[in-house]
Amino acid sequence: MTKIDPSLALWAPWMRRALQLASLADGCTSPNPLVGSVVIDGTGKLVGEGFHSRAGQPHAEPQALEQAGSKAKGGTLVVTLEPCCHQGRTPPCTEAILRSGISRVVVAMQDPDPRVAGAGISRLRDAGIQVLTGLLEREAAYQNRAFIFRVLNGRPWGILKWAMSLDGRTGLPNGASKWISGEKSRSWVHGLRAKCDAVIIGGGTLRFDDPLLTSRGISDPEPLRVVLTRSLNLPDKAQLWDAKEAKTLIAYGPGVSKEQLKKLPSGPDYLELNSTNPSDLLKALAKRECNCVLWECGAELASAAVQDGCVQEIAIVMASKLLGGDSAMTPLAHLGFTSMNQALLASNGSIQRLGKDWLFENLIL
Amino acid sequence: MTKIDPSLALWAPWMRRALQLASLADGCTSPNPLVGSVVIDGTGKLVGEGFHSRAGQPHAEPQALEQAGSKAKGGTLVVTLEPCCHQGRTPPCTEAILRSGISRVVVAMQDPDPRVAGAGISRLRDAGIQVLTGLLEREAAYQNRAFIFRVLNGRPWGILKWAMSLDGRTGLPNGASKWISGEKSRSWVHGLRAKCDAVIIGGGTLRFDDPLLTSRGISDPEPLRVVLTRSLNLPDKAQLWDAKEAKTLIAYGPGVSKEQLKKLPSGPDYLELNSTNPSDLLKALAKRECNCVLWECGAELASAAVQDGCVQEIAIVMASKLLGGDSAMTPLAHLGFTSMNQALLASNGSIQRLGKDWLFENLIL
Repeated sequence: MTKIDPSLALWAPWMRRALQLASLADGCTSPNPLVGSVVIDGTGKLVGEGFHSRAGQPHAEPQALEQAGSKAKGGTLVVTLEPCCHQGRTPPCTEAILRSGISRVVVAMQDPDPRVAGAGISRLRDAGIQVLTGLLEREAAYQNRAFIFRVLNGRPWGILKWAMSLDGRTGLPNGASKWISGEKSRSWVHGLRAKCDAVIIGGGTLRFDDPLLTSRGISDPEPLRVVLTRSLNLPDKAQLWDAKEAKTLIAYGPGVSKEQLKKLPSGPDYLELNSTNPSDLLKALAKRECNCVLWECGAELASAAVQDGCVQEIAIVMASKLLGGDSAMTPLAHLGFTSMNQALLASNGSIQRLGKDWLFENLIL
Repeated sequence: MTKIDPSLALWAPWMRRALQLASLADGCTSPNPLVGSVVIDGTGKLVGEGFHSRAGQPHAEPQALEQAGSKAKGGTLVVTLEPCCHQGRTPPCTEAILRSGISRVVVAMQDPDPRVAGAGISRLRDAGIQVLTGLLEREAAYQNRAFIFRVLNGRPWGILKWAMSLDGRTGLPNGASKWISGEKSRSWVHGLRAKCDAVIIGGGTLRFDDPLLTSRGISDPEPLRVVLTRSLNLPDKAQLWDAKEAKTLIAYGPGVSKEQLKKLPSGPDYLELNSTNPSDLLKALAKRECNCVLWECGAELASAAVQDGCVQEIAIVMASKLLGGDSAMTPLAHLGFTSMNQALLASNGSIQRLGKDWLFENLIL
């Protein structure tokens, strides 16, 4: 736990409001972070609010300051992430703060982006503004875990999702898996997709399930639908080939013949990778502005993604039924541990009920 | 939901107290039910309490009446199960009630035992006592589900327990399973054993795990430890052969040679069955006064027990870790469903945290 300066703690209710504002754009801001901000005048009254809604749109701080107008003078700006000090798609926020006459800035956490990384805070302090940092830092870092992970690691945060029975089966021995989970859980998955920038499956899931993989309109644009394929052995017809509702990207490995490429469906975009390792795909998706991806693949690709460090979070929908079966499908069939010490540990577990199903969310880091 | 007569509902707080008293002997009363009782005098004051602690010991009602003494006269007796009207190991409770001068009896549910089955209530009514029935009937039936099931079906209520990882594995491909769950969960299992009359494993679990299967002293006597074996291929040394702490019963199928029987360890008792079907074992255990058994076996016997209708409740300890592995052990490997409609549905799901693990409890009926 971070020790909190008592004078800093006074601002906690406003920082919570700023975090709440930031969350309104969850899933919409990539490659940018979520940011929320409020302005409090000298008498302690809220005079401005703002949040970053989408890359290219104004940052949270200038919006809150604009709303505050002249009331910002002598006031306090509370913000969930260090203000930027560089010219990006929008002008640097530090300069807007200096112009506003704000006398104090309260920041939850430093921006890990190397173009900022403390320079925004220094710029404000050098100009004589009091800057308090570290308030609700853990909450702010959790809210922006995908952005932070992508900035530090060069690849997006990975969420692996699966639905299974009480006895841990993701399908019957004959492959049938429609539906293990109930309607409420499936709606929840649509919302989860809306918070991600891309949804990834392998060729097997494409051929066997022919999924749609959209958020059913919850997010606009829909997340990018990605098929990672070694063989380019793709079906002629698939829901993913229709790119009207959502874009589809076929990512394939090296050594594919020109003949093969000619035969492919025309709806999707194509991307040649150096390898079909999950991490090579994710590096390419980071360059396409993805902060967060959802793995909705079968056991083979899921196991590879886990082993390649491409899964940081696991969402498990567990239905209240028993499937059984020795050769039935399991979520991570291809992990090959030989000792209990090798087991991957999950943390920060939480649980909720979704209709008759249970939803577990865990981090594996 | 049972419709409750408003005049009956007035007695609900006292019935809750009676249910609470009954629960104090959970796991100790077999083959008898759990029963709790309170006596309220004419002014609404509690004047007597009792619960059935063990077969052969006094029933709940005479204890509560004895405590009440002359204050029972004109009062109300509240009891979780219909008073018995037959001479068993103790005298009929109806006669004690009549002698006490009680004017009203409130009963949660009729006793399914064919020697009672409404005759106790009739006996009281015929003698001029007001008898109200059906108060908190569902709660009372749930508390005595093992007893009721055994009376109606001639075999004990079965609980199947397993520990698995987040991805539904009960062991690594090499069989290692110590320990998937944490210490707190393992202590919880000791408590679960204490509530059961017998704990059952197969020969495979005996040979591979050499378990102790006791409640670690929580219940006295310890539950009967049962090994169901087709082959009588038993190890020379096993913790179960030491019958000092707890009794062990080896149950075997027909067609075993006299030579084989001569070689067996001397600690356990032996029981020849008509078949090694789980239901044949359970019928034999019902005759040995078991209301409730715990299946702590491997997937083969667990699957057979489920298919043979010998599992009514499932307790799953889920550890916050990933084991993976295609050939790793799964809880119900031997169920062979081919359609999602065949999946066994669980109901009444509840969940609690046990250290870093999760505990699910479900009914399958």
